[in-house]
Amino acid sequence: MMAIDAVRHARTVAALSDSPHDAVICGSATEVLLLTGYWPVMGGSVAIFCSDGQVKVVVPEDEVELAEKTSSAEVVSYKPAGLDTLESPLSLLKEFLRSATIGMSLSKSSIGLQLSQGVQPASYAVSNEFRTSLLALLQELLSEANFTSCDELLEMMKAVKTAKELEILQTASRVAAAGFLEASKCIEPGRRETDVAAKVQAAFETTRESESLQRSYGYYFCMSGPNSATAAAAYARTGQREIEEGDLVMIHANTCADGYWTDLTRTYTAGEITSRQRNMRCAIEEARAAGLRSIRPEVTGSDVDHAARSVMESHGFGKAFTHAAGHGVGFAAANPNGRPRIHPLSPDVLEAGMTFNLEPAAYFKGYGGMRHCDVVAVTADGAQVMTDF
Amino acid sequence: MMAIDAVRHARTVAALSDSPHDAVICGSATEVLLLTGYWPVMGGSVAIFCSDGQVKVVVPEDEVELAEKTSSAEVVSYKPAGLDTLESPLSLLKEFLRSATIGMSLSKSSIGLQLSQGVQPASYAVSNEFRTSLLALLQELLSEANFTSCDELLEMMKAVKTAKELEILQTASRVAAAGFLEASKCIEPGRRETDVAAKVQAAFETTRESESLQRSYGYYFCMSGPNSATAAAAYARTGQREIEEGDLVMIHANTCADGYWTDLTRTYTAGEITSRQRNMRCAIEEARAAGLRSIRPEVTGSDVDHAARSVMESHGFGKAFTHAAGHGVGFAAANPNGRPRIHPLSPDVLEAGMTFNLEPAAYFKGYGGMRHCDVVAVTADGAQVMTDF
Repeated sequence: MMAIDAVRHARTVAALSDSPHDAVICGSATEVLLLTGYWPVMGGSVAIFCSDGQVKVVVPEDEVELAEKTSSAEVVSYKPAGLDTLESPLSLLKEFLRSATIGMSLSKSSIGLQLSQGVQPASYAVSNEFRTSLLALLQELLSEANFTSCDELLEMMKAVKTAKELEILQTASRVAAAGFLEASKCIEPGRRETDVAAKVQAAFETTRESESLQRSYGYYFCMSGPNSATAAAAYARTGQREIEEGDLVMIHANTCADGYWTDLTRTYTAGEITSRQRNMRCAIEEARAAGLRSIRPEVTGSDVDHAARSVMESHGFGKAFTHAAGHGVGFAAANPNGRPRIHPLSPDVLEAGMTFNLEPAAYFKGYGGMRHCDVVAVTADGAQVMTDF
Repeated sequence: MMAIDAVRHARTVAALSDSPHDAVICGSATEVLLLTGYWPVMGGSVAIFCSDGQVKVVVPEDEVELAEKTSSAEVVSYKPAGLDTLESPLSLLKEFLRSATIGMSLSKSSIGLQLSQGVQPASYAVSNEFRTSLLALLQELLSEANFTSCDELLEMMKAVKTAKELEILQTASRVAAAGFLEASKCIEPGRRETDVAAKVQAAFETTRESESLQRSYGYYFCMSGPNSATAAAAYARTGQREIEEGDLVMIHANTCADGYWTDLTRTYTAGEITSRQRNMRCAIEEARAAGLRSIRPEVTGSDVDHAARSVMESHGFGKAFTHAAGHGVGFAAANPNGRPRIHPLSPDVLEAGMTFNLEPAAYFKGYGGMRHCDVVAVTADGAQVMTDF
């Protein structure tokens, strides 16, 4: 069994003590990771964390070994399917969830649940969604308990990482390097976006940097020429386009180390860099530096956005920088509610241990886009960039 | 705009007419695909389908082009984030959802929603979950409507594919071929599982078979020697193990063509096949043939499971065949509630157009596992295997 992250455990106890909740019960994989250290594969696990520090997690039997390797929570195993039954996974979960709650003083308590819209990273090709069924099941099992939303509390808890979490997030950034190194070698006129993405992905899949991880996932995307301008959207998409001389070629990656995610982008040029591209690169590098310099505890997300955005504006790229300068990253690659929001209107106050991306960019429809995106941690006296490439 | 799948549209109208629902409203990506033909990327879309045949879908603006390319539903665009607002995506969705409902006679209607536990395939590195928030939002917008679960109805609707859906599922199977062809070439003693998986994945990513698709995803896993026995679990995981002479080497894949998924496995041997392995292969091939022969309309899922299982038993592999012989496949790679269930206790009656996997297998802990898994469609007079490899 892995050593517990004692700092995270103590913080969760403190957060619950300051909250109206006697306990929180989570069925989304990311929040099971937050509460227990174990990142469910297929999402059918439920974590129970009481304000007295007791933690249990109900886990499908196929994931018990993984749970016990990564968490020191008490693991309760259940069998969500079998040759002897056709019952639904939820009805098979029920009795085990009931027995897990025994001895946890939950019967008349105030329990926090995830009720609001949220995001979940892909943890497998397919995963479970409880929708409203976990609330209904718990109302049946704990009929005198009171259930309220703890979504905002969970977002605040996820925002500030512990030293151990920062370390694994750094690993997630480090494993990404192999992909970007390959990109710098293989991007050239005549290659298709799909070919570049495949080479980059293969370099990532085979890097030895991920040997220490239980699960290492990476999604790499290649967008060239006009396609790179579409990267301003909330999602990236590799196309079939053949790269041409003079193109901007953007590689965007979301890599994951055991449930902790990065959001990284580098933009290359196919062939000689043009003066237009050099101006874009110059502005983006300067905006990045200004953004990084502005980062420290006590400043707000809007301060950081402003630092980067005003440089882009001074270079004439204000209108081309169409999105926020960043968003909370770590427990997911992207989360519109993730704190801190690095946005013109963000009142979120930075604290040491917070992690987010910084992504100055300029997009020109029909021509192309350039973005440099890194994951950054707030330290006591500034910013730490998670990548060294 | 793509031609509508008129058969699917008519079937949905008929299914609603036979149900207690005047309309269904879905926020999960797979069911938006079912109702509209458009497969959301990040999951923040909501489809509304009325029993009179009217269909609308509320879509984040970054996905509007994709939605209009793939669906003939009326697309209502909303902006889930912007530089001028910090409001949550849900509150930004609200007014557009309200306006979409206008003119759809929903105010006092009976509306079907997804309330039960279900599964969702990974449609991007991160995606939206509404949890209980979509129900709450709709209760506020349509305060006199009555909301009940339509989960079972949706499962039944997803079970039987239209000719167009079968065609794209066949494409998803065909694009998978490149990966398996590469596997047959590159598996050899001394190679790591991660190396094999990366080569196989790269072959898949660059196949021209996927050129006609908006989105082609594939997850390939390589498990060798004792690791291949762990593939009996609900999920697969590529490891760092070096393949040894005489190993069983399993390649498992879930590929996706625009939202339609496969579940495919082939097992290879590293070096000369041993007599033990030949016995396993012989039993599995015979079980597969018996399973295929048993498939036709009117038989039950348990009939098909029995046909395959009894062959495995007659070869002495009954105990080693630890899971059901198959499960519904198509709108997800795996779904415990997916119909038809090909399980010893399954009463599900096969119909032409149903698709599922057939996966006879034998697993021996510490030694290895062998599985052959194909996607199969029920036809009027038998079974059609979706792959030709």
